[in-house]
Amino acid sequence: MIRVAVDAMGGDRGSDEIVAGAVDAASDTLQPVIVGPEGLDTRGLELIEAPDVIAMDEKPTDAVRGKPNSSLVIACRAVREGKAGAVVSAGNTGAMLAACLLEIRRIPGVRRPAIAVTIPARRGPSVLLDSGANAEARPEDLVQFAHMGTVFAEEILGVANPEIRLLSIGEEPEKGNQLTLEAHQLLAGSTDLNFAGNAEGRDLLSGAADVVVSDGFTGNVALKVTEGTIRELLEALRGEITATVAGKLGGLLIRPAARRLRDRLDPDTYGGAYLLGLRGLAVIAHGNSSRRAIANAIRLAARGVEKDVVGRLTQNLGESVLASRPSTTPTPNVR
Amino acid sequence: MIRVAVDAMGGDRGSDEIVAGAVDAASDTLQPVIVGPEGLDTRGLELIEAPDVIAMDEKPTDAVRGKPNSSLVIACRAVREGKAGAVVSAGNTGAMLAACLLEIRRIPGVRRPAIAVTIPARRGPSVLLDSGANAEARPEDLVQFAHMGTVFAEEILGVANPEIRLLSIGEEPEKGNQLTLEAHQLLAGSTDLNFAGNAEGRDLLSGAADVVVSDGFTGNVALKVTEGTIRELLEALRGEITATVAGKLGGLLIRPAARRLRDRLDPDTYGGAYLLGLRGLAVIAHGNSSRRAIANAIRLAARGVEKDVVGRLTQNLGESVLASRPSTTPTPNVR
Repeated sequence: MIRVAVDAMGGDRGSDEIVAGAVDAASDTLQPVIVGPEGLDTRGLELIEAPDVIAMDEKPTDAVRGKPNSSLVIACRAVREGKAGAVVSAGNTGAMLAACLLEIRRIPGVRRPAIAVTIPARRGPSVLLDSGANAEARPEDLVQFAHMGTVFAEEILGVANPEIRLLSIGEEPEKGNQLTLEAHQLLAGSTDLNFAGNAEGRDLLSGAADVVVSDGFTGNVALKVTEGTIRELLEALRGEITATVAGKLGGLLIRPAARRLRDRLDPDTYGGAYLLGLRGLAVIAHGNSSRRAIANAIRLAARGVEKDVVGRLTQNLGESVLASRPSTTPTPNVR
Repeated sequence: MIRVAVDAMGGDRGSDEIVAGAVDAASDTLQPVIVGPEGLDTRGLELIEAPDVIAMDEKPTDAVRGKPNSSLVIACRAVREGKAGAVVSAGNTGAMLAACLLEIRRIPGVRRPAIAVTIPARRGPSVLLDSGANAEARPEDLVQFAHMGTVFAEEILGVANPEIRLLSIGEEPEKGNQLTLEAHQLLAGSTDLNFAGNAEGRDLLSGAADVVVSDGFTGNVALKVTEGTIRELLEALRGEITATVAGKLGGLLIRPAARRLRDRLDPDTYGGAYLLGLRGLAVIAHGNSSRRAIANAIRLAARGVEKDVVGRLTQNLGESVLASRPSTTPTPNVR
């Protein structure tokens, strides 16, 4: 039985929506545990009490340090203490990151965790990371992101030997900024990564690679541009179609096709994004997550526990940290 | 009569397509001048001879220095020498940038030119810059880009007092990377810019602002993600529609609506992007520009000459350079 701690007080839609999603996700093998205030209607699910709430607009670090008994912090603590295998929150992303760093902590050797978002690319789902955990990154961080993405693609997307590309402004190795130029060198020199070169933004949604690596600023811009363009285009198409009678009729006829496309592209289908690089599993859901998105986020978290993503990452990153150290003769342990 | 030098040898489709576009653009007030090899069929247009050609994959700086008699370099030189008011090329973007820096040169005080691309946003066209002239930028560069974008929006898009936003990963001033945090401060402190704060990538295509400012790496990724998402979505929709008979019929009925949308979003509608910050006007067209795109790029270039974009930029940037200098008492010119 996999237990997933669910922050009932995060998100824009209120705790009823979140509890409903948790009820939907519950199964013979998956037990959501609600974290929220005493007396909350958990509809039969187990409750871990948490008196405080961190609001969406609070300053992350201050909020987490100032409210150790908030639902978010206690949900993360439940993972650290083994009361749950993973945590899900649709709350303040920055606070989630801060709470995870404080309570779950990083895997030894990991400098920066990364947000791994599933991109519904045409040739199959791929993963983009970092999608915004950190605005700055060093070249070595991007190599770690590549390792994290490899484990994610293997275990969660079910891809064998996933291909990795670096998001840049040209496919040629010499195109990019200082960060991507240096990261390209490191990735190309790595022997345990299936690195295939740079990817351009234009290929993100068609399927540039199984794993697309980026600093969190660029990754977040790319993700939001993708989301905004999809939304804008579907709205504009609806506007154009309803402008004429023939268009309206045509619109009715293509409705099933449009719905299939929207379902493929709907962020709710994946429900949330992993925060990778921690000693436990954390899933960040959209602030305005629906019941369906919350249920899918909880299932995504459970899948990561089942596949031992954290164990695999610890092993994988541990090896890469050792491999990236300068090769010196080991000092004999002389007494 | 406005003369525009057109590099006949740039672009993927060959000189016939480019000459055809130039013929289409020619009018009582616009005279395209073809730059290409002796004997090229210019279909009656004036020819400036240029024996050499820079290929799409040549290394920009080496190519420009090594081929001073290439069509691209001679076309740029024509602007410097006053033989043309502007230059258009669909060739190697890096080489175009290098040739412009060498032949047309920067406006005094401008550290980095920027590529200004028109975004067909729903609330009306807006301009994104830098869209990829330089992969690295300093905060002060972004302030100059804001001035350039203001002149572009006023003169080319016809917007009075254009609103400027900085592309970042959150609307709050404290969200972003080191570059955007510092640039935000400078932009907010400027008295002669209509700065409205940060914009997120999700609002780029709906119309975040009249002018969206970014470093060239992020801007290029955002532009290419937008283009790729539009292409992918329209293709996916076509695929879904043609999967069923009802969908096919619906597809026929919505065809005019889909075409209106595609026309709005088609890069060919604008034809090209200005390279701003130079002492003359340069327009970079897509490598695979059609005849229609080339004609529109030439018209775009002529419009910039007509509106004296370079003169306005020189004045505007000159003032901003003076304004940004530390206020010291001027040293008297003592003999």
